[in-house]
Amino acid sequence: MSSKYELIIVGGGPAGLTAGIYATMARIKTLLIEKAAIGGKIMNADKVENFPGFPEGISGMDLGDLMQRQAAKFGLEPYSAEVTEITSHDGHYRVKTTEDEFFASSVILAGGSEHNKLEVPGESEFVGKGISYCATCDANFFREQTVAGVSGGNAAVTEAHYITPIASKVFLIHRRDELRASRLLQERALAEPKITILWDTVVNNVLGQDSVQELELRHSKTGKVSSLTVQGIFIAIGFKPNTAYLQSIVMLDKIGQVLTNTRLETDSPGIFAAGDIRSNSGRQAIIAAGDGAAATLFADNFLRGL
Amino acid sequence: MSSKYELIIVGGGPAGLTAGIYATMARIKTLLIEKAAIGGKIMNADKVENFPGFPEGISGMDLGDLMQRQAAKFGLEPYSAEVTEITSHDGHYRVKTTEDEFFASSVILAGGSEHNKLEVPGESEFVGKGISYCATCDANFFREQTVAGVSGGNAAVTEAHYITPIASKVFLIHRRDELRASRLLQERALAEPKITILWDTVVNNVLGQDSVQELELRHSKTGKVSSLTVQGIFIAIGFKPNTAYLQSIVMLDKIGQVLTNTRLETDSPGIFAAGDIRSNSGRQAIIAAGDGAAATLFADNFLRGL
Repeated sequence: MSSKYELIIVGGGPAGLTAGIYATMARIKTLLIEKAAIGGKIMNADKVENFPGFPEGISGMDLGDLMQRQAAKFGLEPYSAEVTEITSHDGHYRVKTTEDEFFASSVILAGGSEHNKLEVPGESEFVGKGISYCATCDANFFREQTVAGVSGGNAAVTEAHYITPIASKVFLIHRRDELRASRLLQERALAEPKITILWDTVVNNVLGQDSVQELELRHSKTGKVSSLTVQGIFIAIGFKPNTAYLQSIVMLDKIGQVLTNTRLETDSPGIFAAGDIRSNSGRQAIIAAGDGAAATLFADNFLRGL
Repeated sequence: MSSKYELIIVGGGPAGLTAGIYATMARIKTLLIEKAAIGGKIMNADKVENFPGFPEGISGMDLGDLMQRQAAKFGLEPYSAEVTEITSHDGHYRVKTTEDEFFASSVILAGGSEHNKLEVPGESEFVGKGISYCATCDANFFREQTVAGVSGGNAAVTEAHYITPIASKVFLIHRRDELRASRLLQERALAEPKITILWDTVVNNVLGQDSVQELELRHSKTGKVSSLTVQGIFIAIGFKPNTAYLQSIVMLDKIGQVLTNTRLETDSPGIFAAGDIRSNSGRQAIIAAGDGAAATLFADNFLRGL
């Protein structure tokens, strides 16, 4: 196995795989490095309805497999390891992994981000079966149903507003006695008859059979335990981009996402960011895929000295 | 038909249709206005191999139809007219068309761009049958074949370099006796054994049966006519975004593309740009689709006062 490439793609989700399709079609000598399963977070999605081209919807696993087959067809060979460090080295970048180290003139950072979890019993069991970390992606599966949103920052209130026209009832579960959302958002949440805010409340347990049926709640001040019947739960307690190892090589925003311009260039020449990892990404599979293509076109220009 | 919307999408290609999918799924009151056929430029592509999710490739027409069905499924109703003016009006935007006028709080500009044409006999006949306006999209159909690239700006030389590793032979047809490309690019083009530059030469005529077989060339100084056997021709003489009518409402770059930040916001609050129309777009269907989704998410935030 060679250690020198024109392009190294870090991450094998929709951004990395689309970058891989474009790079191999352009005959760029490319290595894609993924630490876990090829396909990324989308592989966990039961049904994807908003990826254009699939009017009947498609399972995340099938969509990931299709992308992977497409990249493989043009010759992309994914390498399984975790990237631990990227440093500038004699006009190239050295990409250190848990397995081996590689060199490339350009790098596309497509390592995605991870949703923060509640860390309560039942949570991992019902992911994609009533539990969602993305209202934009999944709200439509809860048409005319009762759902709960967890947390009270801007993100949670935004998600709640996103779900409100679709669901029949939205409970907003918040651990404190006031929202951290902007005043405007709070006013709207309080004024919306479909939204009921449960103050000083945390989720103890997610219960159900094949999918979510009930939440066990606990009042954070009195300790009183209660139950709430819901068909869905949206958890919006932030997300963590996988960028700790990148701090010394590219500029990050305050939540650790990689800063780019509209050409997806970072402040290190030849390093690009694509998908959920970049600042101001909409964090959707289709946006990540578009990013992967764009980053590769600009990386190709970079490699040709344009 | 109502005249007031939350969001008006101008353009029905991959960017506009994906924006339509996201907007209708978010229950945003949306109108999509398209002046010609729904689907956009991609409808002319014989086979699309680089849209992730379709490892066997798909015809542009089928891909456009799938996107349109997906948007229709969630309730998008396209309106057929040409937008002629967008003005700010009492805190809303007034979108004037050849048919009627509409009002909306936010607008996504997704009107695409058009490739400039040679305007020679045979050109329109062989589009998609040997004639391509996009090497990135189509180079792979010319594996080990002889192709010609037309024009000598940076774009043409870049396209030629893109094709060179894939084709067996590349003729670069240039009307002058020097390239307008950067010196670095020129040096590379001149040094590449697979590339032969035909100076002072223009295309008179594109000839063939089912697909391109021959170009009739004319020397621009001597007038001498010659012929060149090729299987493909890449025309890279620039493109024109459809933005003349937008000059007074959003900032454009020097070739008329709409300037945005990484949130796809223009300098007019509530107006976004997606796809080929925006500055620094990679001008690919998948990038346009990603843009359409992203612009809609940020438009949704805007509509909610975030």
